[in-house]
Amino acid sequence: MPDPSPLTIAIVGGVAGGASAATRARRCNEHADIILFEKDAHVSFANCGLPYYIGDEIADRSRLLVATPKLFRDRFNIDVRTRQEVIAIDRDARSIRVCDRETGGEYDQSYDKLILAPGASPIVPPIDVDADNVYTLRNLEDTDLIRSCVDDGKPHHAVVVGAGYIGLEMVEQLVRRGLGVALVELQDQVLPLMDREMAEPLGATLRDHGVSVHLGTGITAIETRNGRAVGVRLSNGQMIETDLVILGIGVRPNSRLASDAGLDTGPTGGIRTDEHMRTSDPDIYAVGDAAEYVYGPTGQPMRVPLAGPANRAGRLAGQHAATGGAPAMAPVMGTAIVRVFDTAAGMTGLTVKHAERLGIEHRSVTIVANSHAGYYPGAKPITLKLVYGPDTGEVLGAQATGEDGVDKRIDVIASAMAFRGTVRDLAGLDLAYAPPFGSAKDPVHMAAFAASNQLDGMADFAPCDTDLAGKQVVDVRTLKEVQSKPLPGVEAQVVHIPLDDLRDRLSELDPARSTVVVCASGLRSYVAARILKQNGFDDVVGLSGGQTMRRRASLQETVS
Amino acid sequence: MPDPSPLTIAIVGGVAGGASAATRARRCNEHADIILFEKDAHVSFANCGLPYYIGDEIADRSRLLVATPKLFRDRFNIDVRTRQEVIAIDRDARSIRVCDRETGGEYDQSYDKLILAPGASPIVPPIDVDADNVYTLRNLEDTDLIRSCVDDGKPHHAVVVGAGYIGLEMVEQLVRRGLGVALVELQDQVLPLMDREMAEPLGATLRDHGVSVHLGTGITAIETRNGRAVGVRLSNGQMIETDLVILGIGVRPNSRLASDAGLDTGPTGGIRTDEHMRTSDPDIYAVGDAAEYVYGPTGQPMRVPLAGPANRAGRLAGQHAATGGAPAMAPVMGTAIVRVFDTAAGMTGLTVKHAERLGIEHRSVTIVANSHAGYYPGAKPITLKLVYGPDTGEVLGAQATGEDGVDKRIDVIASAMAFRGTVRDLAGLDLAYAPPFGSAKDPVHMAAFAASNQLDGMADFAPCDTDLAGKQVVDVRTLKEVQSKPLPGVEAQVVHIPLDDLRDRLSELDPARSTVVVCASGLRSYVAARILKQNGFDDVVGLSGGQTMRRRASLQETVS
Repeated sequence: MPDPSPLTIAIVGGVAGGASAATRARRCNEHADIILFEKDAHVSFANCGLPYYIGDEIADRSRLLVATPKLFRDRFNIDVRTRQEVIAIDRDARSIRVCDRETGGEYDQSYDKLILAPGASPIVPPIDVDADNVYTLRNLEDTDLIRSCVDDGKPHHAVVVGAGYIGLEMVEQLVRRGLGVALVELQDQVLPLMDREMAEPLGATLRDHGVSVHLGTGITAIETRNGRAVGVRLSNGQMIETDLVILGIGVRPNSRLASDAGLDTGPTGGIRTDEHMRTSDPDIYAVGDAAEYVYGPTGQPMRVPLAGPANRAGRLAGQHAATGGAPAMAPVMGTAIVRVFDTAAGMTGLTVKHAERLGIEHRSVTIVANSHAGYYPGAKPITLKLVYGPDTGEVLGAQATGEDGVDKRIDVIASAMAFRGTVRDLAGLDLAYAPPFGSAKDPVHMAAFAASNQLDGMADFAPCDTDLAGKQVVDVRTLKEVQSKPLPGVEAQVVHIPLDDLRDRLSELDPARSTVVVCASGLRSYVAARILKQNGFDDVVGLSGGQTMRRRASLQETVS
Repeated sequence: MPDPSPLTIAIVGGVAGGASAATRARRCNEHADIILFEKDAHVSFANCGLPYYIGDEIADRSRLLVATPKLFRDRFNIDVRTRQEVIAIDRDARSIRVCDRETGGEYDQSYDKLILAPGASPIVPPIDVDADNVYTLRNLEDTDLIRSCVDDGKPHHAVVVGAGYIGLEMVEQLVRRGLGVALVELQDQVLPLMDREMAEPLGATLRDHGVSVHLGTGITAIETRNGRAVGVRLSNGQMIETDLVILGIGVRPNSRLASDAGLDTGPTGGIRTDEHMRTSDPDIYAVGDAAEYVYGPTGQPMRVPLAGPANRAGRLAGQHAATGGAPAMAPVMGTAIVRVFDTAAGMTGLTVKHAERLGIEHRSVTIVANSHAGYYPGAKPITLKLVYGPDTGEVLGAQATGEDGVDKRIDVIASAMAFRGTVRDLAGLDLAYAPPFGSAKDPVHMAAFAASNQLDGMADFAPCDTDLAGKQVVDVRTLKEVQSKPLPGVEAQVVHIPLDDLRDRLSELDPARSTVVVCASGLRSYVAARILKQNGFDDVVGLSGGQTMRRRASLQETVS
């Protein structure tokens, strides 16, 4: 690559995407003037680590400072200006207006290329939240305030509003700090981005750890006394007394600076970008939570407020700004993971819920399989749901929960999705196997086998919450299993024939009836469905995920 | 799929591929006669679990029996015949000759489709190994003998010959049982399938656990007394006294039955197969350790004696035999992993060594990066080496070592390789990130960034063992690092300029000289190389993997 020419690159926002853009621009162009503007006090801090510092899992605050202004200056020759807010862009003059938040003074800075990484701001509910001990969590200042409150104020109880990623992490960390915690979520499930039955284990884990989980409930007021919150009023009328409130109901893109400058915003309210993260002005780039990306499963623009895409987009925008060329930004899958106590929940691409909302044709299967070889100690079950296109078999998304190995399976599937892989492709992946790490047939393979069977018409699976009324329901588990874990709601109509007796007891069943076969997780019911199908039962399906997933889907998540 | 017609499917070999073929054939064809012949006493045992039972990590022997003959019969209606050895195939008559190893009697069995999964046999060195306490490990009978020897004979010391997967697992498990262990390997490294410097941490881990590691050394004799081995004589003349010997020097495909029947063998001595695992006789299939697969990185036939491909190939062969159709077998990458005490070593596709042997053009990069966000407790370094095509950037292989997350990174890269992904594709993968699980820039991304930079001519990396004689070597680490971890062999000629001082001290260096920049792991030297390159240093490279990898490459692995 020839040496690029000197130019001035201004970057708005010094975290994640902005910081990545700055350092990449420098590596690509030693002779550029690179100026990084950050309205807050810190650049390049570990924003995903903030809850863990509040919870004291990360004990040393300095660990959160990934790169200091001094490092930016000494190593990368980057002019970092903290507490300097860019308040306007004059595109014709290629100049930005900057407000020094220390002095209140304003000045202009010219640029050749401008990279916007202004992030997003926490959404605050439309009620009065003005109290000392009510917080949102977005930056290091927020973190210091919350940690001080916990360290010094010795609160006994917290209410966390919003059961998304940040909310769940805060619940976990506050429990760790010894607080009683109530979690309030407007949707009827925790982690509303996931399908409901897939998120259920997180709710169970929260309750196991003493968290009071309030679903399908908003907050209508924060009760205060002497300027401090003392309780949260729920939309169902209930009052929760508390001495700390964390609001984690989502973020709104900071796209105002861009829209005021006449830059296009896209269909999701983020700054519109092309494959090089250029906005509608080719000298201005946008990355991070305020920008739109191409969303892999649909090919449509989407906001994906996550650190991974922000860092990668920042890197590519920095290179493009500094040299005039860079690889295109790969479509984003919305791959994400959260740990809640012992349980991890990960996802990539479309859920069934999301596919339905977008009107995208899809099918799905759910399997339960061990994180590593069942005969080797310590294997933990992983629940894995695959969503795929009904004609092509293209993988559209996956969700997984479990205590071990969730991240690996989500990453493998996200990697295949980057190439528009099908469920048949997943079935053929050559994955690393030794007993401590996996199985010769990995959970990814098992899910792909089930989906391929469904795609080929070899087997059909009904969703775990399918209506069983009027069906011939055959439970092929052992008597012991049936007695200890009954099938919710339909015990009366179930015919119980253990799988290994099925061939000898076919006469007890009516081949003309619509039949659903059930076992614990879906594996034996598939074997049984194959036996029935090849013995004249034309309309037979297995229940996807078996009794395990049906029980999860049937749990009434109510105020506890 | 229409119901297939009844037919007789005979399967030779009841482990891994054979067992998978049998159960899949049944699910696809309820009306077939399926007969599974196994010359030993057990079918469908956990062959990858055998070392862990010997080491008592798996305490319950019954856990090793994945599926019993009773389960095959009751659930799958499969006729399992153990201790029945198939000794000849009459292809014209579609009939096999079977020897009952209990009675010595012989009989014929006709087939419509025949699936060969005869496995492989341990290679025994060309010396006299006839002693009670000298073992190979292949099946459950071997396992029982070795475990009895350890349980009852109370040996104090073992010699393990061969530092491949089985040898390394046996060393670990015998140390666990309290034995002193010597490991003898003919190559000059442990795990000879990997590049030498990548396998070095395994050798270090072994020595840390008190294992005496003898490399570049064969065995010339086993000394016996009263029919028991008492010592092993090495090719360097040394004698190791011992009371237990395990031979793990590799396996040879059991392809004799097939070749005697006139079936083609391929270039690697395995049974030749097509994409449906059919041999040169379309009614006969071959899977598992005795068969050849298409090897992804070269597209050429290769034997890959691993459980994953065997299971997947068995499944597809079973389906094809039972129905006349099935998806094609995906190319195999040779993805594998082994745990040795705290350290895991994984690989997929080509190593540099293997690429060189095949004369395949390649480049490589090595990085060291944390298993998860460095600011979150418990992060462990992963060393990751990528091998890729110099023109296309296609990923040809990867190797990784570390204490955590090695399996995930290898699986992600193997998944991308299934789609002939490039290093640029890897750089764009959307992987799951939360502090306990990864980093916004994952080790896979970091390696891909380095390779992409090299591919684009933005940076160049020299292999860690490159000859530094006559070069201008610039060490950009801090003084403290340089003093505590000197660069092996070349201290005298190194110019030390900490990275953050480099721009101010350029005059101390000669831009006309061929320059190599070094740091701890390769990240800072890349930043430094970019600074030099853009300041008139035309010939400058970073040392891939830095001092860490150079030290590993320089270690003289000798008899200890």
